[in-house]
Amino acid sequence: MKMINYLLGYENLKIVQDPDMFKFSLDSILLANFATINRKFKNILDIGTGNAPIPLVISTKTKAHIDCIEIQKQVYNMGVETIDINNLTNQISIYNGDVTKLYLDMPSEKYDLITCNPPYFKITPDFNANKNDYKTIARHEVKLNLEQLMKISRRLLKNGGLISIVHRPERLVDILIEMRNNNIEPKKIQFVYPKKGEDANILLIEGSKNGKSGLKMMNPLYVYDIDDEYTEEIKKIFT
Amino acid sequence: MKMINYLLGYENLKIVQDPDMFKFSLDSILLANFATINRKFKNILDIGTGNAPIPLVISTKTKAHIDCIEIQKQVYNMGVETIDINNLTNQISIYNGDVTKLYLDMPSEKYDLITCNPPYFKITPDFNANKNDYKTIARHEVKLNLEQLMKISRRLLKNGGLISIVHRPERLVDILIEMRNNNIEPKKIQFVYPKKGEDANILLIEGSKNGKSGLKMMNPLYVYDIDDEYTEEIKKIFT
Repeated sequence: MKMINYLLGYENLKIVQDPDMFKFSLDSILLANFATINRKFKNILDIGTGNAPIPLVISTKTKAHIDCIEIQKQVYNMGVETIDINNLTNQISIYNGDVTKLYLDMPSEKYDLITCNPPYFKITPDFNANKNDYKTIARHEVKLNLEQLMKISRRLLKNGGLISIVHRPERLVDILIEMRNNNIEPKKIQFVYPKKGEDANILLIEGSKNGKSGLKMMNPLYVYDIDDEYTEEIKKIFT
Repeated sequence: MKMINYLLGYENLKIVQDPDMFKFSLDSILLANFATINRKFKNILDIGTGNAPIPLVISTKTKAHIDCIEIQKQVYNMGVETIDINNLTNQISIYNGDVTKLYLDMPSEKYDLITCNPPYFKITPDFNANKNDYKTIARHEVKLNLEQLMKISRRLLKNGGLISIVHRPERLVDILIEMRNNNIEPKKIQFVYPKKGEDANILLIEGSKNGKSGLKMMNPLYVYDIDDEYTEEIKKIFT
């Protein structure tokens, strides 16, 4: 069932979603706030945009044009509607297609920033979920893996351009290696912890194409306090 | 001027040090507490042991035999004295030499755990410090770099054996890549922050030879609270 909600923490942004199919997540909001936005940025690309939560939040921070690509037609349709009801069709362009094929026809070295909330899980040899299922495509690397994402980013980013992604901490090593393999130098990392004393469950990481080495390990972010309420730092992101 | 101090937080451990030459650091104590110690461990190696703070702390947690190697003769002499005055000559053996040469004559696959507080800084092309200076050797990769450390560890560790090191967060990517290059799989990481809201300045990381992938991002550690006192979690390590 499709419905229109206000984007968490953004009272003036509405998002079209279908809980049975695709719901935007905290991860996307955290990424949109983590990504470095520079006033000089002209072009931003969001890969695997879903129902467009990342471009929605980023549009509040920059006048740059934001391109988005979503592979799944029905999810893309929700993204189109989301952009439309927020009157953002001038600033945000959304495309339906497979970025691993489209990118070769896209202008190279165009983007100042690429954002992506990619599928988190590796495909193991015994993987047997339905590879056409909405959630499978969003969660598992059936259509886009880290190697492809970094290769695409390398081609589409300007020299010094940034790629900012959200992922699982368990995949840190894979991410760093794929970045380095594609001349993308990791520049800042932030881990998000559900609560004090627990292990991190979200990783935010940003790299720079042909950037100098030198990694900044940012202060950790906690989502909930001991009373299971959002922490002050999370509330700040949401307002 | 050489002097004997009690090791911070360990009232029954004394350490010989010379503030002009070589002082043990908080980093070593953190590493000795971070490293996984299993009751089944029989042999542990500490590379670049300095005045032996790491084996000293580890000796309180295990009955395994601890070998240590220190390249600098005068620093090694302090290590010998430290081990002697703590009556640990049966459990800890210290050797003076260059591990990058010695390791080929050491028994391969002997160790359950290797610990190391290595030099932190890369040698840049314009590096012009005195390469024989005590502090230069301890701080800069003139005698031992990450590539060598991981290659040595790969040879000396048992299958499934652990290497646990302390380093700077800026070197995270280099460490992970050298680990993977040597079939050492990163298993747990902890970042240490001087204080809330500041960037991490110490990285603790442990990998397993031929280990399965799957990285645990541990809860962050803060050294000082807002009143510049040691935090409770640090005090716990020190008692």
